[in-house]
Amino acid sequence: MRNVSIIGLGCTKFGEHWDKSFRELIAEAGIEAILSSGIEGKDIQALYGGSMASGRFIGQEHIGALIADQLGLNPIPATRVENACASGGTALRCGYMAIKSGEYDIVAVGGIEKMTDVGTQQAAIALGGAGDQETELFHGASFPALYALMARRHMHEFGTTEEQMASVSVKNHKNAMLNPKAQFHREISVEDVMRSGYIASPLKLLDCSPITDGAAAVILCESDKAREICEKPVEIIASEQASDSLALIGRKSLVETMAAKVAAKKAFEKAKLKPKDINFAEVHDCFSIAEILAIEAIGFCGKGEGGKFTEQGKTAFDGEIPVNVSGGLKGKGHPVGATGVAQAVEACLQLRGEADKRQVKDAKIGLAHNVGGSGATCTLHLFKALEGRK
Amino acid sequence: MRNVSIIGLGCTKFGEHWDKSFRELIAEAGIEAILSSGIEGKDIQALYGGSMASGRFIGQEHIGALIADQLGLNPIPATRVENACASGGTALRCGYMAIKSGEYDIVAVGGIEKMTDVGTQQAAIALGGAGDQETELFHGASFPALYALMARRHMHEFGTTEEQMASVSVKNHKNAMLNPKAQFHREISVEDVMRSGYIASPLKLLDCSPITDGAAAVILCESDKAREICEKPVEIIASEQASDSLALIGRKSLVETMAAKVAAKKAFEKAKLKPKDINFAEVHDCFSIAEILAIEAIGFCGKGEGGKFTEQGKTAFDGEIPVNVSGGLKGKGHPVGATGVAQAVEACLQLRGEADKRQVKDAKIGLAHNVGGSGATCTLHLFKALEGRK
Repeated sequence: MRNVSIIGLGCTKFGEHWDKSFRELIAEAGIEAILSSGIEGKDIQALYGGSMASGRFIGQEHIGALIADQLGLNPIPATRVENACASGGTALRCGYMAIKSGEYDIVAVGGIEKMTDVGTQQAAIALGGAGDQETELFHGASFPALYALMARRHMHEFGTTEEQMASVSVKNHKNAMLNPKAQFHREISVEDVMRSGYIASPLKLLDCSPITDGAAAVILCESDKAREICEKPVEIIASEQASDSLALIGRKSLVETMAAKVAAKKAFEKAKLKPKDINFAEVHDCFSIAEILAIEAIGFCGKGEGGKFTEQGKTAFDGEIPVNVSGGLKGKGHPVGATGVAQAVEACLQLRGEADKRQVKDAKIGLAHNVGGSGATCTLHLFKALEGRK
Repeated sequence: MRNVSIIGLGCTKFGEHWDKSFRELIAEAGIEAILSSGIEGKDIQALYGGSMASGRFIGQEHIGALIADQLGLNPIPATRVENACASGGTALRCGYMAIKSGEYDIVAVGGIEKMTDVGTQQAAIALGGAGDQETELFHGASFPALYALMARRHMHEFGTTEEQMASVSVKNHKNAMLNPKAQFHREISVEDVMRSGYIASPLKLLDCSPITDGAAAVILCESDKAREICEKPVEIIASEQASDSLALIGRKSLVETMAAKVAAKKAFEKAKLKPKDINFAEVHDCFSIAEILAIEAIGFCGKGEGGKFTEQGKTAFDGEIPVNVSGGLKGKGHPVGATGVAQAVEACLQLRGEADKRQVKDAKIGLAHNVGGSGATCTLHLFKALEGRK
């Protein structure tokens, strides 16, 4: 049985990069990952790049080959993976399986999105392609509207309040203050969220993650080899993925994200762990309600309890289970294809004790939960630090 | 060591499907593949779907989840793979590695493109995203122009003639006459090609593959298990992939496709075979010059000899090495994301002796060569029939 560890990390600052292109962003993250890994570019045997809508954001498909080219890695196999906002998590899983297969020992995984080269309306339409174009976007249901339906139903079934949802954004903005790579360095209050104006009721502007440019990269290595060449390898102790109906209309429930539940269940079984064994989690808070759905699906709290659980501070930096210490998608930013890889980068920083001011104490096991669309794809990874070379 | 075989096949007719949507096409191919495989849908453990530009052709990303949904396969992991026109071959390789990894025993692989829902100009721009948007498409160099540069250089260096290139199209249209699923059922002559009007000199209309709608699917299975459940499993005896610079400007040569050379060399080493051991090949003839470059890169003939080799009939149905017996991209059609999977379907039909009027005699080993862009990605697969259950 071959196991897989992360030995190198790279991540650009997340934000509006008017002065940097898609290529420059992925090169920056990729080179940082290679330089931090103890290997050289020529040691990399394959590459997986996650990007959701490069065709519609920058007119460029075929970005696997572009990344290999940009990093001087030709002629290694290079593959773009796309699962909407879970493109990064899926690329990580493809890299993981490529090493598991025995075909490769060292694989680079990147995630990237350059979203600000188009106008907001065009971006909304491009992002709408993550849902069901025929039954949702075509009829005007862009992503805030889809998550608003879930939020409204959660309020109806469980009494979740707008203030509880707001507390997700407040926490994540607060956490982002300690992350130099985060898009936003501005604390917000529940009142700020409440008066920030409806985008799709009950979701307001500050319930929504932003449009972001950014890239992240990790270098994966077979674990035995990783222990030899790296001081602090971080093993992927579970990598799972599941799917659900693309459109909300196909779901059995609007308040349970089944793909996340299935992926989490399999991951915990694989790693022989339970939710209470997790020391911190990076979850997919594209909207405040999404974090509430995530912590319920993973099992940090019971069904319907996510709003209260958050409001009570249990997912805060110093809470029972710190969620999105990085700032999450809301505070750190959400360059869609990069997000899943950036979550892995944060998990490694925490497990290696390199998270500086936002270091979670005694972080042994980390979790990353990355969602595509309104929940049709979910990847779930568990991470644990290994003893590497001295 | 786990090996991987194909146990089920499906392919729609290739052509202009005004009456069928993306979903209907992939459902048709997928269901045919499942029904022909001896398994049921519930036995499928993961899915990889290749599509190049679904975002720009039909406004839909996240098509992995869409396909799983459409085929009723939720909640299995479903992943879209995109490597331009090599998306299908890359999806096949991802499925192959997923089984090799030990994570799954049975995996579905699909390829699809619905190209006729947009106008020709928009299609040309979408397809241009397979090359380098910044140094090529932005300046007006769409795909016929890029391949025209390669064709012109091949003519200059080796004396290749326009008539020799035309002979590729003539052969492939002739072969397509015997393939009921081909887009074109019309024989053409060298004279027809020569007077068909320049698209980008020296390439004329009939040197170019068409805009096509279509889908193809295969069911992969671990080989030991495949032998138990399938009468005629076809083993993937080599799966290789390589990359080259995205833009032509980055290449050392315009007349050698390095990614194809690297992938072919590795595949032959892996399978301990030589080009002369191959009984038939499906190669990526998106333009007539592309087939000439392909047969040179694979090693069916020497460098610069591809034009003469074709003109002499050596790649004809009854020639030394039959190339594109299916009709190839030129005759069968080229729904870009589907092509690599459709090549695998053709290889299986030939190796199982089910290719009807176009059956290659004593077909033991087949080859599929799938190219992304102007050559920045190449996948190369070798196939061999196994003895299955009686």
